[in-house]
Order: sequence, then C-alpha cells, then structure tokens
Amino acid sequence: MTADKRLRGIFTPNIVPLDGQGEINEPELRRYTDWLIDRGVHGLYPNGSTGEFTRFTVEERRRIIAIMTDQTRGRVPILAGAAEANVRETLRACEYYHELGVRAVAIVSPYYYKLSPPAVYAYFREIGRNTPVDVTLYNIPMFASPIDVPTVQRLSEEFERIVAIKDSSGDLPHMIRMIAAVRPNRPDFSFLTGWDSVLMPMLLIGCDGGTNATSGVVPEVTRKLYDLTVAGRIDEARELQFKIVRLFDAMLFSTDFPEGVRASLALRGIEPGMGRQPLSEGQQSDLKVVRDTLQCLLAESGFADEPVGGCPPAGRVDPQEVSHIVQGVLAELKRRGLAD
Amino acid sequence: MTADKRLRGIFTPNIVPLDGQGEINEPELRRYTDWLIDRGVHGLYPNGSTGEFTRFTVEERRRIIAIMTDQTRGRVPILAGAAEANVRETLRACEYYHELGVRAVAIVSPYYYKLSPPAVYAYFREIGRNTPVDVTLYNIPMFASPIDVPTVQRLSEEFERIVAIKDSSGDLPHMIRMIAAVRPNRPDFSFLTGWDSVLMPMLLIGCDGGTNATSGVVPEVTRKLYDLTVAGRIDEARELQFKIVRLFDAMLFSTDFPEGVRASLALRGIEPGMGRQPLSEGQQSDLKVVRDTLQCLLAESGFADEPVGGCPPAGRVDPQEVSHIVQGVLAELKRRGLAD
Amino acid sequence: MTADKRLRGIFTPNIVPLDGQGEINEPELRRYTDWLIDRGVHGLYPNGSTGEFTRFTVEERRRIIAIMTDQTRGRVPILAGAAEANVRETLRACEYYHELGVRAVAIVSPYYYKLSPPAVYAYFREIGRNTPVDVTLYNIPMFASPIDVPTVQRLSEEFERIVAIKDSSGDLPHMIRMIAAVRPNRPDFSFLTGWDSVLMPMLLIGCDGGTNATSGVVPEVTRKLYDLTVAGRIDEARELQFKIVRLFDAMLFSTDFPEGVRASLALRGIEPGMGRQPLSEGQQSDLKVVRDTLQCLLAESGFADEPVGGCPPAGRVDPQEVSHIVQGVLAELKRRGLAD
Amino acid sequence: MTADKRLRGIFTPNIVPLDGQGEINEPELRRYTDWLIDRGVHGLYPNGSTGEFTRFTVEERRRIIAIMTDQTRGRVPILAGAAEANVRETLRACEYYHELGVRAVAIVSPYYYKLSPPAVYAYFREIGRNTPVDVTLYNIPMFASPIDVPTVQRLSEEFERIVAIKDSSGDLPHMIRMIAAVRPNRPDFSFLTGWDSVLMPMLLIGCDGGTNATSGVVPEVTRKLYDLTVAGRIDEARELQFKIVRLFDAMLFSTDFPEGVRASLALRGIEPGMGRQPLSEGQQSDLKVVRDTLQCLLAESGFADEPVGGCPPAGRVDPQEVSHIVQGVLAELKRRGLAD
Repeated sequence: MTADKRLRGIFTPNIVPLDGQGEINEPELRRYTDWLIDRGVHGLYPNGSTGEFTRFTVEERRRIIAIMTDQTRGRVPILAGAAEANVRETLRACEYYHELGVRAVAIVSPYYYKLSPPAVYAYFREIGRNTPVDVTLYNIPMFASPIDVPTVQRLSEEFERIVAIKDSSGDLPHMIRMIAAVRPNRPDFSFLTGWDSVLMPMLLIGCDGGTNATSGVVPEVTRKLYDLTVAGRIDEARELQFKIVRLFDAMLFSTDFPEGVRASLALRGIEPGMGRQPLSEGQQSDLKVVRDTLQCLLAESGFADEPVGGCPPAGRVDPQEVSHIVQGVLAELKRRGLAD
Repeated sequence: MTADKRLRGIFTPNIVPLDGQGEINEPELRRYTDWLIDRGVHGLYPNGSTGEFTRFTVEERRRIIAIMTDQTRGRVPILAGAAEANVRETLRACEYYHELGVRAVAIVSPYYYKLSPPAVYAYFREIGRNTPVDVTLYNIPMFASPIDVPTVQRLSEEFERIVAIKDSSGDLPHMIRMIAAVRPNRPDFSFLTGWDSVLMPMLLIGCDGGTNATSGVVPEVTRKLYDLTVAGRIDEARELQFKIVRLFDAMLFSTDFPEGVRASLALRGIEPGMGRQPLSEGQQSDLKVVRDTLQCLLAESGFADEPVGGCPPAGRVDPQEVSHIVQGVLAELKRRGLAD
Repeated sequence: MTADKRLRGIFTPNIVPLDGQGEINEPELRRYTDWLIDRGVHGLYPNGSTGEFTRFTVEERRRIIAIMTDQTRGRVPILAGAAEANVRETLRACEYYHELGVRAVAIVSPYYYKLSPPAVYAYFREIGRNTPVDVTLYNIPMFASPIDVPTVQRLSEEFERIVAIKDSSGDLPHMIRMIAAVRPNRPDFSFLTGWDSVLMPMLLIGCDGGTNATSGVVPEVTRKLYDLTVAGRIDEARELQFKIVRLFDAMLFSTDFPEGVRASLALRGIEPGMGRQPLSEGQQSDLKVVRDTLQCLLAESGFADEPVGGCPPAGRVDPQEVSHIVQGVLAELKRRGLAD
Repeated sequence: MTADKRLRGIFTPNIVPLDGQGEINEPELRRYTDWLIDRGVHGLYPNGSTGEFTRFTVEERRRIIAIMTDQTRGRVPILAGAAEANVRETLRACEYYHELGVRAVAIVSPYYYKLSPPAVYAYFREIGRNTPVDVTLYNIPMFASPIDVPTVQRLSEEFERIVAIKDSSGDLPHMIRMIAAVRPNRPDFSFLTGWDSVLMPMLLIGCDGGTNATSGVVPEVTRKLYDLTVAGRIDEARELQFKIVRLFDAMLFSTDFPEGVRASLALRGIEPGMGRQPLSEGQQSDLKVVRDTLQCLLAESGFADEPVGGCPPAGRVDPQEVSHIVQGVLAELKRRGLAD
C-alpha cells in the first residue's frame, strides 16, 4: 500500500445525453465520452449526482456503464456509481461493473432515510466484505446520510477494497480531519473533492483530485486548474479558481440541478437533450437568462461566442449579477433544505 | 365535489415482513393485513416511508400492493405509495395500482435532489394530467423536496384527480395555511397528517385523518385517539395523545427508523423479520434497551407483558428516560440533517 | 403547590412607543398600557422580544418596568423581562423589578453564544438560587440557546422560585414532553406559549396561556380565542385561530420583526413611533404593502377601516397573497438562520 | 486607495482575564497584552467573540479598550469591538475608541434578532455615515445576522470609512465571492478570516490576514503559519495548518466556547480566571479531560509539559480522540443551532 497507487486527478461526473423520447442517446454519450477524454480529464465518473443516477432505472444505469467502458477502452479509468436500493442490489451492481472493467465503483451513502453513523458503517461494512472491485465512498451530506470521520477511518482500516472517498461537502476542516485520521495508516487511500468552488484549496491541503461537474463542461479549465495547483503556481491557479467559482455558482444555484450543466453543455456543442425532470414554464424562461450568463462566462475563456445581446464589459462579467443570483438561490436552497 | 367524498380516518403505513432470506414474507404480510383491519384502522398505506419503499425493487413494490389488495378484498381502502425513478415510471405504477383497485396512490415529492417549488409543481402536473387514479400528494420535508402551500393550492385547483395531501412535517401553522388556501375551492380535498405526535391537535384544527406509524403497532390506540378527538372528548383524547407521543418518540428517535417500529411489532406478535439495512453491533445492543422501553410502554396499555427486568413504577413509565433518549437522538438526527 | 397558583391567560409582550427623538414615549406607553388592560389581556410582558429589549440600555429597560408597574397599579400582573449581560447583572434586575412589585420576571436563555444544556442549566441554577422573585424561563430557540426538556425538568424540581416557562418554539410535541416531565412534580408550574399560530392547539394539549404578540394589536381577538378554547367551543375557536395565523404570518414574516407589529399598532390608534433599527428605502416601501395587508386583516374584524385601495372580496382576504409573502419570507428567514 | 493600506496579518481576539471576584484583572490583562505583542502578533482585537464582549457591561467594554490602548502604546494596531445595543450607542463607542487611538473598530452585525440583508445594510449605513474611525464589518453567521455579499459590496462602494471585513463563517466560496465583488473597486479593502481551521487556504485564495483565537494561545504558531503561507512554503504551512485544526477543534468544540481558550491560556502561564458564565459540575469535570488534550497538543510543539498521565505516542496525538470529541460536540452544536 503506497501513495503511488492513489486515484489522482480530475474524474468527470458526466451527464447522460437523452434523445427526443427521453431515452439514452447512445451515440451522443459515446461522442461526449471521447470529447471529455480528448480534453484531458484523468477519468470518468458516470452514475453520479450530476449523472442523475436516481432518474434512471436499474437496467439503464447498467447500460450507461456498459456503453462508457466500451467506448473508453481503457484510455482513462472509470469510477462507476453503483448505489442501488439495498446492499444486495448494490453488490450485484459492483459485480457487474467489475466484469465490465471499471477501475472502481463509487457508492453514495444511503439516502432518503438519514442514517446514523453506525448504520452508515454497517452498510459499507457489508459492501467492504463482499465487493469484488475497489470502492470509493461517496459523501454528499446535502443529499444523503453523512459519512463522518470516525466511520471513514474505521472503514479504511478494516477494508483494503475501500480505497478512496469522494467528498462533496466542500468542508475544508472536515477534509483535513479525514486526511489526518486516515492517511497515516492508509497512504494509498485517495481523497477527492466533489465541490468545484474549493478545488484549489482542497488540493493544497492534501487532496488527490476531484470529481467536478465543471470538468464536464470546461474540462480544459478544470484540468488546468489542477495542473497549476499541483505545480505550485498559486497566483495563476487562484485566478482560474475564481473563474470556476463563478461558473459553478451559475450552473449550480441559478436553476434546479443539473439543468445548468445541461445548458452549459449545449453551448459547448454536446446535445444533452431535455432532462427527465419536467420543467415549469417559469423555469424554462429562467433558464434562458441562465444560459446567457453561462454563455458569457464561457465566452470569456473562448469556449463560446457571446450571446446575441452581448455580455457585460470584459474582465468583469457580472460578478454582482451572479452574486445576486447566488444569494437569491441560496435562500431558495435553504428553503428546500438543500443548503444550511 | 363535496366534503363527503374526503378520505378520512387512520390509514396505516405498514411495514413489510421479511423472511430469513430477506425476501417478502407473504403469509405474514397477509396475516398482518388482516390483523390491522381487525383492529379498526380505516385504511392501509403500503409503500410509504414506514414501509421502506426505497429498499425494495420496482418488482417488489408492485408485488406488495398486489398481495395487499388481494388480501384486503375491499374491506378497507388502500393508499398505494407509487413513487418511482421518474414521472414515466411513476405513472406506470399508477396504472398498475389502478388496475389492482386501490382507492388512491400516494406520491412522495422527488427526493435525493432537493427540487425548487416550480420543479415540484412541474413534476406533479405531469402526474395530475396523466394519472388514471386519484392521487395523494406526500409531503415529508425531512426526507424529500418540500411541497409548499402555493404549490398544493395550484395543484388542487388544476387537477381533480389530486384529492389529498399526506403531510409529515408535523407543522401545525403550515397545515392551517394549506387548509385555508385549498378548502374553499376544493371541499372534497383531504388533509392527512403523518406525524403521530400531533394527531389530536391536527384533527382539531381541521385535518381529516392521519397516516400514522403508531397505528401499525397499536392500531387500537391510534384509532381510539381519532374517535375521541372527533367526538370532542378532549380530556380523554389528550391523555391518549400524551401516550402516543411517548411511544412515537421511543419508536422514532431511539434507533434508526424504522427499527423501532419493527421491534414494537414483534412485541405484538407480528414477525417483521430482520430489515434490509444492516445493523452494527452497537445498534443491535442499543435495540435491546429500546425494546424494553417499548415493551413497558405497550405493557402500560395492556398490549404486552412487562419485560423480564420489570418496568418503572406504573403511572410514570420513564418520561425522563424517554426524554433523555429523545434529546440525545434529536441531537444525532440534527447531525444527520434529519431534524432541524 | 397547587394548580390554582399557576400563571394563566394571555400576557401581552408589548412594544415600547418611541418619540421623534427615539426616546421612550412615556405618555404613549402609559396610554398603551391602559388600552391593553381595558381590552382584556390577563397580564403584561414588557422587555420581551416584541418589546425589543436588546435595543434599549440597561437604564431604559428599568425605566420601562418602572413606568408600567406604576401605570398598572396592580390591575393585572406583570411579567418583566430581566435578562442582562451576565448572571450578576440579571440578578440585580430581578431585585429591582421585585421591589417594583412585578408578579414574576421572565429570563431568556443566554444568547449570542449558543450554550450547551449544562451551561444553560448552570446559568438558571444561579438565578434560581438567588432570585427574590418568581422566575419564568424563556425558551426561544430561534434567537437564544435552547432550554431542553431535561433542563426544564431539573430546574423545576430544584427551585420553587422557578414557576413557569414561556416557550416560543411553537413545537407541540416539545410542549407535550415538557408538560409530561414537569407537571407530575410541580402542579403549580405554568406553561405559556409564545407562538400565536398554535395558541388554540397548545391550550388544548395542556398549556395555561400565552405571551402573544397578536394580543398587543388585537387583544380582543387573542383574548376571545383563549376564552373560546378554554370553554371547549372548538369550532368557533378554530375559526379565530385561522384568523390569527394570517395576522401573525403577515406581522411576523412580511418584514423585519417587529416592524409588522409596529405598523399594525399604528392602525389601532397607538403611536409606536419609528423603531431604533434603521430601515432601508426598500424596507420602507415594502412596509406600505404590508400595512395594507394588515389593514385589510384588521378591517375584516372591524378593527380598522379598509385601506384607500380597498381589500380583496370579504370572507377571503388574500390567503394566497399572505401565503406567498410567507413562503418568500420564510425562505429569507431561513437564509438568515432564523427559521429551519 | 491602494492595496498598501490594507489591514494585514494576525489580529488576536483576546480573552479578558478576570480576578477572584469576577472583575477585570487589569494587571494580568496588561501582562497578557505584552505577552502577545512579544510573540509576534500583528495586532490586537479586544471585545470580540473570544473576548466575550456580551458578558461585560458598557462601562467594562470601554475600560478594556482603555487599558489595552494604554498598554500597547502604538506598538501594534488595535481593532476594537464596538457593538452596542443600537446604532446610537454603537456610534458613541466608535467616538470613544477613536479618541483612544484605535486603528479601527470592528462591528458585529446586529444579533438576537436575525435581520434581513436590507436591515443589515441600513444598520451599517448609519455607521458608515457617522463614524469618525475606520470600520471593520464583522460577519459571524453562527451568532449574528449574516452580512451577505451584495451588502458588503454596496457598503464598500458607498463608505470609505468601511475598510475591511472580518468573516468568521469559514466559508471559502463565500470569501472568494466577496473578494471578487469588492476588490476591483476597493483595492484597499481588507479581508480577514476568523476561522482558524482554514487560515492557510483563506490566505492562499486572497485573504489579508486573520483574527484567530489560536493566536491568543499559541501566537508563535499562528504567526508562523501566516508567514510560511505568505512565503509560499506550502508543505510546511500545511503541516502547521493541520496542527491548528486539531488545537482549534479541541478548544472550540470540546466545551462551551470560550472555556477551551481559557483552559489553554492557563497552560501557557496567563491566568484567565473563572469566566462569568457559570459551569455545571459536569462541565467542570469534562474540562479536566479537555485540559489534558490541550496540554498534549501544546506539549507536542513545546509550549507546555505533558500532563501527569502522559500523552499518546508522539507524532500521532489522538487524532481519533479529538475527532470523536469533535463529532460528538458538532452534534451537540447542531442541536443548539450553532452549527448546520
């Protein structure tokens, strides 16, 4: 067990393109897979939250992994989201994805019910005992039962097959506590952050990489932020981190997740299609505004043309605008219990 | 549309008994169905949160409704939980349950992702437009995206097929706001509370009934609380409400939900089997203490013998004990984001 | 110690009228005191949250109690808010208010810092040991450190001078747990609710009264709601409770507390003056809308003329309007951490 | 207005030593002031949250600043906490502290009531218009009304006298949004973090310094963390940051704030005396355990001898122990509404 074995770099949690009937658009998913690999992401992470795993059926989730492993053909490692209705079903998914050749699975803590730490431990213990493939714990407390530090430490010490945690809390001190608790005994254990707004600081305090939604839209930027940070080019990295915060805020908080990701992707020439969660008329017209904001942010880095109406003066693309959107929507999120 | 058509009374959200292999124990589920009907519940509510619907597969959820409609044979109405991965799948479940003859379906707001009110509206609008069977909205903000008052009002005015809301927030002012907003235009719309601790006050401020976990364990008591309250026998009702609070607290907060329900049920002679969510050793030994507390509470009303070690002096069965458990576990719940 | 000694009824938490210089308007405070007593409130509760105690100096808080005890001359009992910077200062206030002849003091749990239950206990223990006057605990978890059930129980059992709790959580099950834990040993202990939206159900589950902001504006209505509920006239009481919810929501959630109370009071002919917390231009113009809504609600019960622009059709004064305001502002409140 | 004018470095929020009667221990406060300056802190920050400003009287708060300005005699700048009961009283404090020669005041957002952003703006606008001395905004959302990004931006653009924000949210993306919104128009505006656990990453994303409780206990370490980070010596800085997290967690979460700071200080030879908030017996015995943990953490860096019972093996001083304490107390904090 050495640090060399750690999962490292940017793993893209990808959206699954749908066709006009709401079915998986296999050709576009294959094209998107290539597009991402060509732009430098270190790995792929299908069936994550960005990938809307809960909105697909069991069979569809399996087909997504089958298509992507087939298309990737080992060029980059795949982390396959494998959470199903219960331990037994989840283990079946692990087995199937193992046969397909994924590098590891990622398993979100049980959701809907909010479980206590001992119950979370007991769930992952069953997984750890029986999985044929490496497992990444997936902690996303805004959606699922939290995985606390003692639980991560205990699981890491008891099960070699549990090799990493993907943490989407965005909580720096929490990450520091986890690394301090786990790394001494498991130098091969990997820490990935799922919160794009803190990718640079997370890498600087010891994370190994990230599973970042922005990398599905601007893989060039997220990858470069990773490279600059790892190279210690702090000033340049900071500048990119600030850009990523604006894009992430706009994608995440200005509409129901992950519609902002879908809208951004369309601007990059990938056709995500309409999502399965229906939108109200209000949401659809809001989305037009969001799209313009996103287009300006992308245009700023040369990834899109400016929208017809133009953008705010260069160098300062509406930080206030975005800020106001964010403030408003944070309030909304809190109302919905998504944020604290 | 008149008030006479409203769903009224106590609908039991039932646990699904499992056998030694973790499979649905059909004979025990049939026996439990009869047991509940014999003890006076007004209706049944399978595939709810107490029924652990998320831990079963699509096929198992369908089988549960098939078994229970077959066993019930119209003696009491069935509210069938019908939420699936997305609108289309949910509508398929609605169609199937309609064919099976359920009185209505109950559909929880989308979960995992926390949706905005417009998105919640858009989701139920699709359901409202296409369902062949009456629909009960299911609001449980601690687990799923909240359904706010304007959304309930709008849905109630646009879709006749949406006939009720089951609200598990336990929030009295929220219920008052909903009734004030909806009842003038929809006198036939029914309001059911899923929060046992406030069943009496909810009925007194205008609710039509409840979907209460305690009614799966002590149907006699929950039914009597309903009857006394509706009859205006406030002092007697209050006394029962206080008992229900103690039982509900002990069942809900002293262990991971719904293990307390399972433990209580075993004390009443129904064999729930082991749940699908694995338990740690600590949880298992904690559960023994919980079982004793529950047994004392049941013994107090004559529904069980006292445990071997005896119970605290009659008349004051450990209010402090329960209180301490509750306080401790509320803290825990808050940590897990389950309570505020 | 018998139930006969309990504090009972409606204690009005009164605003303190200010003059053009922002100083205490003594004549108007005296007139308001009489106005309230004349309209039937059972007692007065100055220096509470509605009374903006934190925005006055130590000397001003004392002067408020001196004026009101002088004006009241024993016609109704006074609960005097006595919280100061630390235990010693609080005890000094207790002594002074005792000399002034108040019935009891009310002491909010320490705020700013959020204290643990043992620290809250230790604070009130010092008070309990040294106070010369009866003490009402004041639990308002949205503003101050919560006082949990075991703490209330322990304090009630150790200190005879602690005679009541004023609870503004609005949490029915919490109130039930408190009553169950305390009443057996302290039949003289009083439970008052500070949450107007649940006054009727709180009384029905065993509360003795309330300290309700609405009673400062429509004392006739709050008093009548109390009387009807205590008399068991449930249907009439429910109707008033629904009205109170609308008024309370509009007063509380449509602007920064307690500006809605101040606006309502002006409509009743009491001149509260401008508050000490400055208002932005936006808040001031919002307040005009709020004032119209409040005026319509008051007009409905004959306590004000309709505003110049008229009101929505009688019998259904903008439940949706209020509902929308409430929803929007609840979101806002949550953003500010005020609501959960 | 240039970047050169910014407040920079570590400003220590100091505890005020008390004597046996609970009065301000002036000689020890003077000695502590020197002790801090001698150990390299860049400035002092009396009357902050660590300084328990709410537990002193108006007169005492003034005396604290008078003593410390007299003792400091300009060796380091002083940020004086100036929040009082209302705008007028706060401005009086500003005037007095200005006469005493403080570098700036720090004013916490109004607390107890949780104000809306417009109300927070209106409050600071009055301050901005009338203050004779530079003002640092103080955002600490766990204790006081949050100051959101648009409010900070607007205040920074309208009032030159408002020169900095001290933010204790510990929220990195929030800090990034603030810097992006304010710095272009106010290059002289300073951003200080009050959350020790993220001092290094906050400095790396653009903060100018911190007001950190740990610097009151181990000024050598906090100062060195600042120096190493600013010098770009990331690996060494990270190691210190990890140490600071452990110390901060132990001081902050293992007992009621700021008892852990007081206990640590005593270990460094400063006599803080007993605090004004009384402690229960349980708290006092818990504090002994905390003291040992703190002593081991200090001993690790050579700032204290090991406790009599010894410490866990060097190099790995109880990360799990601390982690468990933290987890337990975070739960507690959440119960009290202090953490999310």
